[in-house]
Parts: sequence; C-alpha cells; structure tokens
Amino acid sequence: MPYVNIQITREGVTPEQKAELIAGVTNLLKNVLGKNPATTVVVIDEVETDNWGIGGMPVLAYRAAQALRESKS
Amino acid sequence: MPYVNIQITREGVTPEQKAELIAGVTNLLKNVLGKNPATTVVVIDEVETDNWGIGGMPVLAYRAAQALRESKS
Amino acid sequence: MPYVNIQITREGVTPEQKAELIAGVTNLLKNVLGKNPATTVVVIDEVETDNWGIGGMPVLAYRAAQALRESKS
Amino acid sequence: MPYVNIQITREGVTPEQKAELIAGVTNLLKNVLGKNPATTVVVIDEVETDNWGIGGMPVLAYRAAQALRESKS
Amino acid sequence: MPYVNIQITREGVTPEQKAELIAGVTNLLKNVLGKNPATTVVVIDEVETDNWGIGGMPVLAYRAAQALRESKS
Amino acid sequence: MPYVNIQITREGVTPEQKAELIAGVTNLLKNVLGKNPATTVVVIDEVETDNWGIGGMPVLAYRAAQALRESKS
Repeated sequence: MPYVNIQITREGVTPEQKAELIAGVTNLLKNVLGKNPATTVVVIDEVETDNWGIGGMPVLAYRAAQALRESKS
Repeated sequence: MPYVNIQITREGVTPEQKAELIAGVTNLLKNVLGKNPATTVVVIDEVETDNWGIGGMPVLAYRAAQALRESKS
Repeated sequence: MPYVNIQITREGVTPEQKAELIAGVTNLLKNVLGKNPATTVVVIDEVETDNWGIGGMPVLAYRAAQALRESKS
Repeated sequence: MPYVNIQITREGVTPEQKAELIAGVTNLLKNVLGKNPATTVVVIDEVETDNWGIGGMPVLAYRAAQALRESKS
Repeated sequence: MPYVNIQITREGVTPEQKAELIAGVTNLLKNVLGKNPATTVVVIDEVETDNWGIGGMPVLAYRAAQALRESKS
Repeated sequence: MPYVNIQITREGVTPEQKAELIAGVTNLLKNVLGKNPATTVVVIDEVETDNWGIGGMPVLAYRAAQALRESKS
C-alpha cells in the first residue's frame, strides 16, 4: 500500500519515461519490501523550472552559473 | 489549524465538486477533532493521468488492463 | 485511486478518531467523485506542536498570545 | 540537504518573486541551521484558486465573504 | 535534482532495506532520466499503522477484513 | 494562506531554532508576496538519518564517503 511521490523539473519527460519510472518504483517496493503492486500508488510532479530552487537560485540560473564556473576552471 | 492535501487524477472535476470536497473535509475535521474551520487549509492536486501510477503502470493502462481481464472472465 | 494526506498537531488523537477521519474522507471521495474506497489511501501525519507554525510562531505560543489578547479585550 | 515545499495560490507571482523566495528560504536554513545551500532544494507549488480551500470554502469565495462581513461592520 | 518521497507503514523496515530503496530509486532516476545522483534526495516516511487508511479503514482492520473474506471463500 | 513544509534530518534542532525557521519563513512570505502571517502555516518534518537519502545512499554514509574523499585529496 505504499505511496511514492517523484518531483522533477518539467523538461520534456515522455509518457514512456513516466511509465518506466512507475514500473521501476513499483518493482523496487515489491522486491525490497514485498509490497503489493496492485495498491502501490506513484505520483509524478513535474515542476516548472522557475519554481525549482537549488543552491539558493532557480535551477536554470544555477546551471548557468555552474557552466560558467566550469568553463573558467 | 489542519492542512489537508487531496490528490486525484485530472479528469473533469468541476468547481462545484471541489467546493464540496473542501466543505466536506473541513466539516469532518470540525466534527471529529473540533478543529476550527477558519484555519483549516485544503489543497486539491489534480494530477495528469500519465503521471499517476497504480499496479506498476499509468492509470489509464491499468484501467484498460482491468477492463480486459473482466471482459474475459 | 485518490491519496489524501491529513496533517494535524499531535495532541492525543485516539485510534477511534483516526478511524473516523479515514472513513469520513473515503466516503466523501466516493460520494462526491465516485472514487473507489478500495484504492483510496489516507495518511494522517501528527506533527509535534514545536514543529507547527501559525501566525509566525509555534502553535502553542500562538494560542497563548491569542488567549492573552482575548482576556484583555 | 533540506527540502522545502512552498504552496501558494496561483495569482501572478513573478519569476523575480520566486527567485526571492528561493534565495530567502535557502539563506534562512543556512543562517539558522548551518545547512549547505548547494544541496538545499526549494519547490514552489502554485495552486489554482478553485483548488485552495480555507474556512470550508474555495479561497475566492472565502475572501468575498470576508469582504462582505467587513463592509457590514 | 529530483526529490522522491516514499511513504510506507512502519512495520520493521531495516536500515539495509532503506538503503536499498534509496539506491534503487536514485539509480532509476539516473537510468531513465539521466538525473545526477549527487543531487537526488530520497525521503522515506514510515507511518504508524493506525494512521494509514485504505478501503475506508485503518490498514490493520482492512487486512483482517480481507483475511476473513478470503477464509470464507 | 500559504503552506510551507520544511524537511530536515533529525539532528538536535532546538525549539528556539524551529521558532526562528517559522518566523523567518512567515516574514519572507509577507515581505515578498504580501501574505498574511495569521494564515501562514509552517510544518517542520524532522526525518531520521536512516530515512534520508542523498547521492544514492543514506545521508550518514554519504557524509562519511565525502569526508574520506576529501581526506585523500
């Protein structure tokens, strides 16, 4: 009866990839804990990049800053 | 001061139905636990069917598989 | 297949009250949206009062401040 | 390594305001708990007003009722 | 930079099993979406059985009802 | 009417630090978005270190691996 919530940035994940995530997580819970797939719920949240923060800034700004830093090193 | 999060698939829930859910949950918390409606927050998340997994697959595939199984039995 | 998360302060809620919340929310989703109780998951989170903030302060401090304000009015 | 989820109504929050929220929360966790900004994740959920309940009704109805009450007092 | 929340009933999951869940989910996100393990956060919530509802009742009552039904069929 | 959920590892955070987090987040939402503190809810989840994964492993194993790597460099 587990519930799993996967939060990722909204960046073109395909329905096939979502199906793979759902199958993969459900199998993992079955294999590790013996949980019944029939009652395992998986919810994927796709979050706009403006709404996702890491390193104290929106994720696109963060990636740009990291790329700049690497190009200088 | 409770917080309630309701997650359902996005399949044409009307504003009237949402208002019923909000009123119903708020009353339930008032009746069972004496919680003050004025500070009871209810948030409804409508999730795309591609993003909702059950039985190890996206919910529409799961329903189709179940319908097939029942039609054969 | 809904998932509902109820967050309340940990203040002596009994198993019977929890069962009432679970039954009440499940019935509400059945009555309003036709959702199947067999796959409706309800998770209750009881949160320590130190960890629950409202009005910019922990909930017990908030209630004390409100009681004081009311006794003065 | 903290994770912070901010839920607000979807009412025209700008990318600049979102960046301020992300920076502010990340700094707060660094200043109060010494958490490393590089692994602090902030996710902002903007919720449709129909889907946000307070006082037992959708938030726009709630605000209208409050405005009416205040205009009468 | 994904965030994954796994909610299960608190029923004796070992630290080794938790480590397997964390590794498994992180690998899945790497393999399916190319997500960087270094910033993939996994949080496991173990929920008391009294606080977990399914089929309109607490999970232990639900399992007992199911076992009874099966013993009769 | 915002709701904020802060998830951190359970490692001796004091009630004073929690109060600081609650005040800080509530002020941030007031200053950036004009949100009313009276209806801003903040919930802090303290998560056991065994239950918190980063880099594909439980957080304490991750920190030990990082310390080892740094001592070698």
